[in-house]
Amino acid sequence: MEKEQEVNENKQELNENKKEAHEKLQGNLLIGQGGGPTSVINASLAGILSKAKQNEGIHNIFGLQNGLEGIFVKELFTLSKEDDEFIEKLKYTPGAILGSSSYKVDDPDKEAELIKFFKDNNIKYFIYIGGQDSMKSLDHISKVAKKSEYDLKVIGVPKAIDNDIPITDHCPGYASAARFIAESTIGAGRDLEATKSYDDVAIMEVMGRNSGWLAAASSLGRKTVDDAPHLIYLPEKEFNEEKFLQDVKEIYEELQFIFIVISEGIKDTEGKLIADKDPEGPAKYLTKLLYQEMGLKGRVHKLGAMQRSFAFSTSQIDVDEAFMVGQQAVTDLENGWSDIMITLDRASGKDYYVVTGRTHLAEAIKETKNMPKYLINPEGNFVTYAYYQYAYPLLGKELPNLARLSGIPVILT
Amino acid sequence: MEKEQEVNENKQELNENKKEAHEKLQGNLLIGQGGGPTSVINASLAGILSKAKQNEGIHNIFGLQNGLEGIFVKELFTLSKEDDEFIEKLKYTPGAILGSSSYKVDDPDKEAELIKFFKDNNIKYFIYIGGQDSMKSLDHISKVAKKSEYDLKVIGVPKAIDNDIPITDHCPGYASAARFIAESTIGAGRDLEATKSYDDVAIMEVMGRNSGWLAAASSLGRKTVDDAPHLIYLPEKEFNEEKFLQDVKEIYEELQFIFIVISEGIKDTEGKLIADKDPEGPAKYLTKLLYQEMGLKGRVHKLGAMQRSFAFSTSQIDVDEAFMVGQQAVTDLENGWSDIMITLDRASGKDYYVVTGRTHLAEAIKETKNMPKYLINPEGNFVTYAYYQYAYPLLGKELPNLARLSGIPVILT
Repeated sequence: MEKEQEVNENKQELNENKKEAHEKLQGNLLIGQGGGPTSVINASLAGILSKAKQNEGIHNIFGLQNGLEGIFVKELFTLSKEDDEFIEKLKYTPGAILGSSSYKVDDPDKEAELIKFFKDNNIKYFIYIGGQDSMKSLDHISKVAKKSEYDLKVIGVPKAIDNDIPITDHCPGYASAARFIAESTIGAGRDLEATKSYDDVAIMEVMGRNSGWLAAASSLGRKTVDDAPHLIYLPEKEFNEEKFLQDVKEIYEELQFIFIVISEGIKDTEGKLIADKDPEGPAKYLTKLLYQEMGLKGRVHKLGAMQRSFAFSTSQIDVDEAFMVGQQAVTDLENGWSDIMITLDRASGKDYYVVTGRTHLAEAIKETKNMPKYLINPEGNFVTYAYYQYAYPLLGKELPNLARLSGIPVILT
Repeated sequence: MEKEQEVNENKQELNENKKEAHEKLQGNLLIGQGGGPTSVINASLAGILSKAKQNEGIHNIFGLQNGLEGIFVKELFTLSKEDDEFIEKLKYTPGAILGSSSYKVDDPDKEAELIKFFKDNNIKYFIYIGGQDSMKSLDHISKVAKKSEYDLKVIGVPKAIDNDIPITDHCPGYASAARFIAESTIGAGRDLEATKSYDDVAIMEVMGRNSGWLAAASSLGRKTVDDAPHLIYLPEKEFNEEKFLQDVKEIYEELQFIFIVISEGIKDTEGKLIADKDPEGPAKYLTKLLYQEMGLKGRVHKLGAMQRSFAFSTSQIDVDEAFMVGQQAVTDLENGWSDIMITLDRASGKDYYVVTGRTHLAEAIKETKNMPKYLINPEGNFVTYAYYQYAYPLLGKELPNLARLSGIPVILT
């Protein structure tokens, strides 16, 4: 509990919106899932359900079908009767079980319809699990309700494999995607090393339009200089082709193979996306460049939608935290909060320790969190040890120590 | 032991090449890894090492660097001193730790050099872990040695994610690749279901030029009619576009989304590869076709090299069996065998049970094993229950039961 105290003391206090003594909840709760699925977005739903079911003031628990679209097609799931066995399975179920969409509430007709729907169905509480776009929609819906003088409490639960929501130490969903990317890099790296008589280079292309959090995660399985990845390029730093060729040359000469990870969003010195240089994508463009300039034969790995859907590399810490933020959203409703997003706050110190906190929705949507400078090396081609310290504990159980032969080959007759 | 007896009784006896009373081994052992890595090719090496280290007649254990290429660059790993900790780690290390290549011994100069190399280094025993091409090379090397009157014993240890070597019930490496494909399908299937407001169809493209074993494995996580995959197309059956469109229509109308798995090697009614119809591959071609003919929006998943390199979905049964065939190769050398490949033989009956067996190399390389008819449904668009019975036990621990909502959405006001 000492740690918990420390975290709370470090936190900015929120004084608005919090009622001094909370009144008993009275009405129906609506839950939605927005944006792309993650390995643990259903664990957050499980957390909400497990807690909401215990509150007698919440009469019905409804689930939106396909995000905000569900409000307008007026088809809802009734979740009140789902049992503990369902909730336990849900923690480990990939996808977004309610369905998702990019549907927005953005014109007066829709707004009126939304308020009518909430009134007609006595929905007084709305918890939305999603990324920054979903938090923006939630903030907007809350404002529409206020304008209509409809008493609605809204709470946001973050999820993002991109890890780009500010204020929270990290986003539920990131840790599992990071673990999958680290494991994929270990495997594909060993594969290249085993088949370096076929190919010289592998380039793995990872999600991340503006931020390099996912690409950075490829570093987490690296234990020796031979291990992949050898270079990582992120959107936060400009990508210089000359420098890139020099980086590759140095490492290739030493190892006779090289494994590179790039974010899909890397940009050249003029701010132009490398992705725009080739219809087959930036990794393909760079393998062609390496072949042309240095004669290196390359292969490409694109992790694609696996980054958010492969749920068998789930980090147990991620599952537990996603569940925890879900539960906390209900607790915060019970304590009279509204217009906030639940956060994960990390204690300083040697051991990893987080508690839930909260921030105004307005703060959570103000800007996008890219990787800060101190997590990227000055050369802009790898992460720093500080990133490793930040991200490694999120992965849950440690990544394995793999076998390495003890000697270099001997020359025989 | 009853089961073991049954398997042995069912097995064709091999009478050639087996010496009645085995003489003590005397000389050096060479081990190589050929072809593409698998999740467990190193586990077979671990099995060989663990057993060979105990035999005092084997003076040195050498490892080829990069498959047969190692013989000609004359760089070998000395493996005799690797300890038990290394061997234990090796069981779970992806890649092929000795390195691999597609190098062949195919001209008289090379053959003479090979025999000289074996003589100079007193190599009397050669165990080669690989697919059918490697078994062919091994058979050839044995013949070259015989022609040169050089006393060399050779034993093949199978590996193939494609599962296409005959006689053995299955190939080490298949089970882990199958598990990964099943898990990927579960995740990507739930992802599509969650985002069916964005896309209607997903097509996953899986390895398999001639055989559908890997694509078939996508079925193994399916537990309800909603679960992916809904259709599977394999190279063993001709692919008819008209029939395909009809198949898709029926399922899409019922579910409002559809997940399809295809082998990269599916061919049309004239025997032409679907892959040849589009530079972006057969899955992309078919998503375009579905959009054009039915207006369905599609996404593509290509699992690529992950199928052989993602070693964190390893089947424990696969690891154990790969280790076992490696150990058996040394035992068979000790018992005087040569020119054979180790096999896995399954007992009939309710419970999964395998023992190692052996076959002449000549039998193992005679033909490639595609999926037999009874494992594919008559319509040619899914596997049969018999496939499920064949493959499911290979996966090791069971695939999880995931959450499903108990009701369909209710219409609200």
